[in-house]
Amino acid sequence: MISYRSEDFENLEKYFRVNLINSVSGLRPVWLVGTRNAAGTDNLAIFNSLVHIGANPPLLGLVFRPDTVDRHTLSNIMDHGFYTLNAVTENLMEQAHQTSASYPEDVSEFEATGIEKENHAHIKVAFVSSSPIKMVLKFKERIDIQSNGTHLIIGSVEELHLDENMLDSEGRINPAAAKMIACAGLDTYFSAQKLGTFSYAKPNKALEKL
Amino acid sequence: MISYRSEDFENLEKYFRVNLINSVSGLRPVWLVGTRNAAGTDNLAIFNSLVHIGANPPLLGLVFRPDTVDRHTLSNIMDHGFYTLNAVTENLMEQAHQTSASYPEDVSEFEATGIEKENHAHIKVAFVSSSPIKMVLKFKERIDIQSNGTHLIIGSVEELHLDENMLDSEGRINPAAAKMIACAGLDTYFSAQKLGTFSYAKPNKALEKL
Repeated sequence: MISYRSEDFENLEKYFRVNLINSVSGLRPVWLVGTRNAAGTDNLAIFNSLVHIGANPPLLGLVFRPDTVDRHTLSNIMDHGFYTLNAVTENLMEQAHQTSASYPEDVSEFEATGIEKENHAHIKVAFVSSSPIKMVLKFKERIDIQSNGTHLIIGSVEELHLDENMLDSEGRINPAAAKMIACAGLDTYFSAQKLGTFSYAKPNKALEKL
Repeated sequence: MISYRSEDFENLEKYFRVNLINSVSGLRPVWLVGTRNAAGTDNLAIFNSLVHIGANPPLLGLVFRPDTVDRHTLSNIMDHGFYTLNAVTENLMEQAHQTSASYPEDVSEFEATGIEKENHAHIKVAFVSSSPIKMVLKFKERIDIQSNGTHLIIGSVEELHLDENMLDSEGRINPAAAKMIACAGLDTYFSAQKLGTFSYAKPNKALEKL
């Protein structure tokens, strides 16, 4: 085992530390966040900080760094109030990674990366056409995290569109069935394979594999 | 595609909705959180809500539901100030799932599930002996989320111990190399396989697979 203590982190080479700490939390979900700016440009940005906040009402959180390219997405959400979440699959992986490039605000990452856009007439933010899960989120709450100046944006799921072949009869979505990917750190991507579904755990009762 | 709108969610059968919304955010990391209560019992609980908050200083967040078995973990963290994060592998999967059973507060989930405990003399919280990543977190900030009464607990990484064969020369941790797992929803687990590492994205520059 290799060990680091808090005083060691500051002395690590900068990119080594960035890679290490960004990959230390394990497998993270990968999503494309679609927003529209005041000038009408559709922006699209890759995020690996989506977190489940609650099921009833359905709420999801996104963590934004203080001063990065994320700013376009954050300010668009604050201005507009609605955004889309689009699941990233193996087929979308390279183009999704390319959205992390620092494009000027008037450039649409849909056009710059060739990701196909889908518009729904009643909503003024764009979806990723080929994503197996597409959601419309409505901004609910912004939390400014004191410890490091990051922001947690909480949104409610207003619309959910998903491929029917990834949904079972009890409501479980199987991300592997649609080749959704995970990531570790800022640049490394993973496919997933289902290991199993286990019964609800109770004390002194053996688990069943469902 | 199947579509749900916000007014549909309330009318879904309860467990269908719980499964659907808990699995809608994609592949989530799986961790065992170790805490110690005032009576000295070592508690251990499975979490899939770990989120990266920042690299410098290294900060990680955990989302806690308002009124659940999580309460032991949350109150122990608030009382004690330190907790451990232990990565869950395929070998630990079933025992880790079993920690979600509602044990009384004086029962240690280490003993109830047979997960082997590791103690370090200088720290008063226990680790999972066979985890390939073990961290000591120090409580930094508690955020009460207005939208639904959940809590985001932010901690700083004080110690990080990891298997050297999962770390590359640039600081990237490969969770698949140690058979770390992901989950979707509350009961379904996935293995991961590395697809690739891509170069830093820049406008008008083709990505390289590293």
